[in-house]
Amino acid sequence: MIDTIIKNAHIITMDDLCPVIDGGAVAIDGAKIVFVGNSIELPPEYSTAKRVIDAHGDIVMPGLVNAHAHTAMCVMRGYADDLELNKWLFEKIFPVEGRLTREAVLAGVRLGIAEMLASGTTSFSDMYSNEPNTAKIVAETGIRASLSNGIIALGDGFRFETDRATVETLELIKTWHNYDGGRIRADASIHAEYTSTPDVWKRIGAIAREHGLITHIHLCETKKEYDECKLRHGGLSPVEALARYGVFNTPVLAAHGCYLSDDDIRILADKGVSIAHCPVSNLKLASGIANISKLVFSGVNVCLGTDGSASNNSLDLFEEIKLAALLAKGTTLDPTRVNARQALAFATVNGAKAQGREGVTGRIAASYDADIIMLDTHSPAMQPLYDPCSSAVYSAKGSCVKLTMVRGRILYENGEWKSIDVEKAMHDVNSVAVPIVRGQ
Amino acid sequence: MIDTIIKNAHIITMDDLCPVIDGGAVAIDGAKIVFVGNSIELPPEYSTAKRVIDAHGDIVMPGLVNAHAHTAMCVMRGYADDLELNKWLFEKIFPVEGRLTREAVLAGVRLGIAEMLASGTTSFSDMYSNEPNTAKIVAETGIRASLSNGIIALGDGFRFETDRATVETLELIKTWHNYDGGRIRADASIHAEYTSTPDVWKRIGAIAREHGLITHIHLCETKKEYDECKLRHGGLSPVEALARYGVFNTPVLAAHGCYLSDDDIRILADKGVSIAHCPVSNLKLASGIANISKLVFSGVNVCLGTDGSASNNSLDLFEEIKLAALLAKGTTLDPTRVNARQALAFATVNGAKAQGREGVTGRIAASYDADIIMLDTHSPAMQPLYDPCSSAVYSAKGSCVKLTMVRGRILYENGEWKSIDVEKAMHDVNSVAVPIVRGQ
Repeated sequence: MIDTIIKNAHIITMDDLCPVIDGGAVAIDGAKIVFVGNSIELPPEYSTAKRVIDAHGDIVMPGLVNAHAHTAMCVMRGYADDLELNKWLFEKIFPVEGRLTREAVLAGVRLGIAEMLASGTTSFSDMYSNEPNTAKIVAETGIRASLSNGIIALGDGFRFETDRATVETLELIKTWHNYDGGRIRADASIHAEYTSTPDVWKRIGAIAREHGLITHIHLCETKKEYDECKLRHGGLSPVEALARYGVFNTPVLAAHGCYLSDDDIRILADKGVSIAHCPVSNLKLASGIANISKLVFSGVNVCLGTDGSASNNSLDLFEEIKLAALLAKGTTLDPTRVNARQALAFATVNGAKAQGREGVTGRIAASYDADIIMLDTHSPAMQPLYDPCSSAVYSAKGSCVKLTMVRGRILYENGEWKSIDVEKAMHDVNSVAVPIVRGQ
Repeated sequence: MIDTIIKNAHIITMDDLCPVIDGGAVAIDGAKIVFVGNSIELPPEYSTAKRVIDAHGDIVMPGLVNAHAHTAMCVMRGYADDLELNKWLFEKIFPVEGRLTREAVLAGVRLGIAEMLASGTTSFSDMYSNEPNTAKIVAETGIRASLSNGIIALGDGFRFETDRATVETLELIKTWHNYDGGRIRADASIHAEYTSTPDVWKRIGAIAREHGLITHIHLCETKKEYDECKLRHGGLSPVEALARYGVFNTPVLAAHGCYLSDDDIRILADKGVSIAHCPVSNLKLASGIANISKLVFSGVNVCLGTDGSASNNSLDLFEEIKLAALLAKGTTLDPTRVNARQALAFATVNGAKAQGREGVTGRIAASYDADIIMLDTHSPAMQPLYDPCSSAVYSAKGSCVKLTMVRGRILYENGEWKSIDVEKAMHDVNSVAVPIVRGQ
């Protein structure tokens, strides 16, 4: 007998040919989806299961991919808002990060994962410190993640071999890369063009090539970064500078992309670089607004990220999905730009591709891993329901998520976390991390 | 014995001198707030009540004011998205509105009110047809509202005296204006400059003056509207044209304001016109982005609206609050623009002022009506809690609302509506309105 059947659902498959199946069923065995189709066409061998869930017309869709996160930063959620960027960074964020202990980081990660699971995220790409320890929490909580520590090569004291980011990267690769059938991956990471050097890029590139890693990077977040790079690199933009030193010769996931020339965009498309659009963070920090519809039109793989909770202050990816569609329309004065299906693709198939998990997650399809969420449609805010894709993008919030499953395992259901003691997670953040953030 | 005490709350009072009281208490008797202060300072006469609610550190704040809604349009939520504006209006929305029956409109209104109550809105300004019947639903559900039917004076057949909007306006004034201690108000309404004439404006103005009404209007939503007005009115902008004919000589609540010159803004500020900023709708319909920080700086009273669910597709005002702050920062590249307290003011005190309810609702203060909401802070998404204002703006969603009270009466609590049969409301929309929308 197979493990789970979900039936009578509006299934957003993210399949190009059949994006939505009304009255659909999904059969799950072990970590895999074994059947997707109409409920009345369930094959006899999948007619019953250890658990049969009647969705009663709820929406079933792929779990979301948060392609750019600094999960531990949720310990600073709401600590420093509405500030000028340098004040925010140098007087608030950096001093706190200097004080954060391993325990504080891990408390933040656990809380952030709880928030992500409850709002429908089943996979995330993280860049922070303490990532080998973060991997233990990812392993324990059952979520999927790509973990990295972005190298920052500033100052005379920097030595690549002994730098903490390098050490953590090698430890992640050794201990965690492809753990649990690929549920955890190690990513290589350059923090950004402006915080490192071509020498570092080549060394990170060599590691990425050797181990088949995605390289996670911040790219063209602010105008200042763009302009200053041109001064540093003889008129080259950040994209051009990184391209010159071969950074894009292995797969790259680049966050932000607010400032990109047509030439830059052509390079990103040619090199298959994914852009993690972070609309909430880019607006909140007043960085700018990425021209996503141009990126899409140019063939760049666009996915979505929340960035850290200190610049958002939420890990609810449904907010980014809606805002990505809204901003594309509002900034071009064209309401047809980034339609609901495209916005959903950003957060599902495109995110999976950016993580190197194409064919594994991001669709509801047979042979894919069972990374599945269910949205409650039985509320005034979700009624009536004409088009599940429109409802999922323009009406749904993370709070509509009533079930989150990763690799066939239900991790969140109806307000209950199955793999996290959430009361303890909240208590730990308040007892361990908050006093450090406050400098007490 | 008084009716209700809420204690141990973070109270966002919206008082200029003391915006937040930690460990605060609110005492409520009948429809009124009788005490606000520290929980340990509750006077003896308010030491107990028929119901004592321990907030356990949840946030208590004024109920939100949705200053621009077409509530009945939630029957079209998700029916027509991502379309070019004329196609959306002329092929989708207007034909459906032509078919909508009174029953379909009222089913939509009841569903929309349920959604608003569950997401913290305690007062709304509505413009639609069938408003005298809408008033019955407002009366029955206990929410606060300002109701209007915007006059559209197009075509040769138009006669002011017999036009449906005029007839409804007079009926609203006669039957509903100041009902239940002002819980319901009638508004005068001109749909927009481009859909009416100076003769109509003068007649509506006379009615507004005679009865002391706010006039609700759409203003400068699109560039087309702005440019065409100049052709129609000898180079005058919509604001200048309306000002010339005295429309702003009585209080006006104007929705949108995406296209405003410096001269226009000066007129709005001088005349005390309120602008209902509708950021989600303006982006989704690709109308543009109102320059809210300039309006605020110029002394214009800025409030917030969701617009109709067909162009949003949500009535969750927390989304507009956050987006108003984000857009102000992102479009000016200044992260200090529209801080959390200002964004909350848009949705509370400023909205109350726009509705003509200054001193009645929008603050947690003694002698104000008890229009109060409570936000659950005991979830990963709302932890940690450094600054209740930041948390309410940047982290909270409507789904955090665990209690909604209007004039001392709890209308929504922990997922239950006290004055609405929500199952029936959803059923009615699906059985009565959806077939009409679909043209079946």
